[in-house]
Amino acid sequence: MRELGADQLDDLARGAGILGTGGGGDPYIGKLLAREAILAHGPVTVLDIDEVPHDATVVPVSGMGAPTVLLEKLPAGTEELTALRALEAVLGRRATHIVPIEIGGVNSMIPIAVAAQTGLPLVDGDAMGRAFPEAQMVLPTLIGVSTTPMAIADDKGNTLVIDAVSNRWSERIARAACVEMGCQVSSADTVLRGDQLRDGLVPATLTLAEELGRAVRLARAGHRDPVEAATRLLGGTRLLTGKVVDVERRTTGGFARGRARLEGQDGVLELSFQNEHLLAVRDGEIVATTPDLICVLDTDTGEPVTTETMRYGLRVTVIAAPCDPRWTTPEGLVLAGPRYFGYDCDHVPLPKEASRRE
Amino acid sequence: MRELGADQLDDLARGAGILGTGGGGDPYIGKLLAREAILAHGPVTVLDIDEVPHDATVVPVSGMGAPTVLLEKLPAGTEELTALRALEAVLGRRATHIVPIEIGGVNSMIPIAVAAQTGLPLVDGDAMGRAFPEAQMVLPTLIGVSTTPMAIADDKGNTLVIDAVSNRWSERIARAACVEMGCQVSSADTVLRGDQLRDGLVPATLTLAEELGRAVRLARAGHRDPVEAATRLLGGTRLLTGKVVDVERRTTGGFARGRARLEGQDGVLELSFQNEHLLAVRDGEIVATTPDLICVLDTDTGEPVTTETMRYGLRVTVIAAPCDPRWTTPEGLVLAGPRYFGYDCDHVPLPKEASRRE
Repeated sequence: MRELGADQLDDLARGAGILGTGGGGDPYIGKLLAREAILAHGPVTVLDIDEVPHDATVVPVSGMGAPTVLLEKLPAGTEELTALRALEAVLGRRATHIVPIEIGGVNSMIPIAVAAQTGLPLVDGDAMGRAFPEAQMVLPTLIGVSTTPMAIADDKGNTLVIDAVSNRWSERIARAACVEMGCQVSSADTVLRGDQLRDGLVPATLTLAEELGRAVRLARAGHRDPVEAATRLLGGTRLLTGKVVDVERRTTGGFARGRARLEGQDGVLELSFQNEHLLAVRDGEIVATTPDLICVLDTDTGEPVTTETMRYGLRVTVIAAPCDPRWTTPEGLVLAGPRYFGYDCDHVPLPKEASRRE
Repeated sequence: MRELGADQLDDLARGAGILGTGGGGDPYIGKLLAREAILAHGPVTVLDIDEVPHDATVVPVSGMGAPTVLLEKLPAGTEELTALRALEAVLGRRATHIVPIEIGGVNSMIPIAVAAQTGLPLVDGDAMGRAFPEAQMVLPTLIGVSTTPMAIADDKGNTLVIDAVSNRWSERIARAACVEMGCQVSSADTVLRGDQLRDGLVPATLTLAEELGRAVRLARAGHRDPVEAATRLLGGTRLLTGKVVDVERRTTGGFARGRARLEGQDGVLELSFQNEHLLAVRDGEIVATTPDLICVLDTDTGEPVTTETMRYGLRVTVIAAPCDPRWTTPEGLVLAGPRYFGYDCDHVPLPKEASRRE
């Protein structure tokens, strides 16, 4: 058990931005929400997975939509709590713990805000170990836990509660509604019992995000290479250092989809994304694929660059890092591997040196 | 109080098909659902509005979607009850009475099936006095009754419950979800208390539909003009007798939209529809508009012709009949007048002779 205060948010947001693999929504906006909630309600209690009682009702609360929309259409700040209360109403019981559904971007910050607002403890972990674009892409799907009931709330005060026959159907229905509601909504879904956390979460990812953000900051302050510090901590590998020369981006079907082209001394790298980076092709060869992490960092500062803020001329370094091993099982790859997203290729394992530091 | 048995369904479905103004979904499919439910569970008790206790919980149950889809994708037959039960769960109380949301087409039949399945009495009336394409186009909107909570169920077993800030928003969210769920779902919404029925319903429209269907049948049997019988009963006026020469139809945004062109000895008539017929233009002059009823009948048989079954060569007669007077108030026209649907014209009152027989 530890306390999470406002002064830790900068590191955490930076690290979560990197783990968000280009997606998960702008962590800056999430940081403002979390900071305001902590300043108003006090610091948040963070628990390790092992500290959560087996009969706990652990509720992930998150934002859903296209990060491109989040940039221009700020949350009202009340949606998360509305979604949580709507979920509790159908559950017939209150949440006892809050947890991030993904450790990427704004969705690592929103649960902090909700934990502060409700006074509930926050669980150190998340259901992906990164960010993914679709709601069924969570470890709970792999262990048969339903993402529904799923409660969704928008900035206008509309709510809906979905009960679906599969986690894929809940995503489809929620996404369609989300687009109509303005492409940026809050969701409370994928309720976990305390004894499901070990199989349903990647542990200690809030801690990892904070360490990652701190490592980048300290490297920068010590005039060391911040990208190198992040790469080492993630057990990753450097794919390319260069310049963004082209970005093609469109917000369709409730996602920010597109491609980016980077040129460096070592060659040309093409990234494809759907909210998150999904495929990296260097000089025509596939060098990294989802579900591994493909992260874009500012070469000078080590700050994460999200897909919606990527633009011509940015000097960036792209790194790849191994995902949680449950994602590269056959079932994990069916759920979030390259073929699911329509890429005609198998998952390409990262080079041996790329394995996360333990 | 009276009983509604399977042998009355033919007349009722025929009349409801006419009152559906081209929409409301194929009454034949609805008739099969209602017949099966009555044969399995016995006849349905039908109550006049005045016979319903003031504290009753009266629930409209209906199909939502594009009639073009209903033609090919039959209901599973379980959606209505699933939607009703989901609504009751959020209401925290059971429905005491069932009522049609619209008297048109399949949606006059589905409530009969649900009443038979649940053993609940059916209220003789509906919330439109015709069919309209969108969920907020109900008299309850005019008296400030919310269409939400709205419970929606599809053929696959997915359900959702919407709680919206306005009846327009509930339509928007429900329509988006409906399209994703296969464009044909069931809905339970717009709950009325017994003491709201007088202002929230058009009374005795089940009776009207049955009388209308019977009048057409008897005229046909007696070698009289069935279209004339229907026109007289509705206080309507004949717009054109002729042949369908062109139909342009597309299923977009969850609706069957399109136009039809008819040629007769008296001229050329163009109909525009969004599930229901909304505008009739004869030789360049607007002769009838929503919210008045624009009905297409087979000239020989008097059978209703729905927009999705209209095709080249059909010999039809188009009649216009006055809507419930609450629809031609300023508030009613804002909700369901021609301008709402994007037509740059005001409501055109029907000729004086067109006034419903009382």
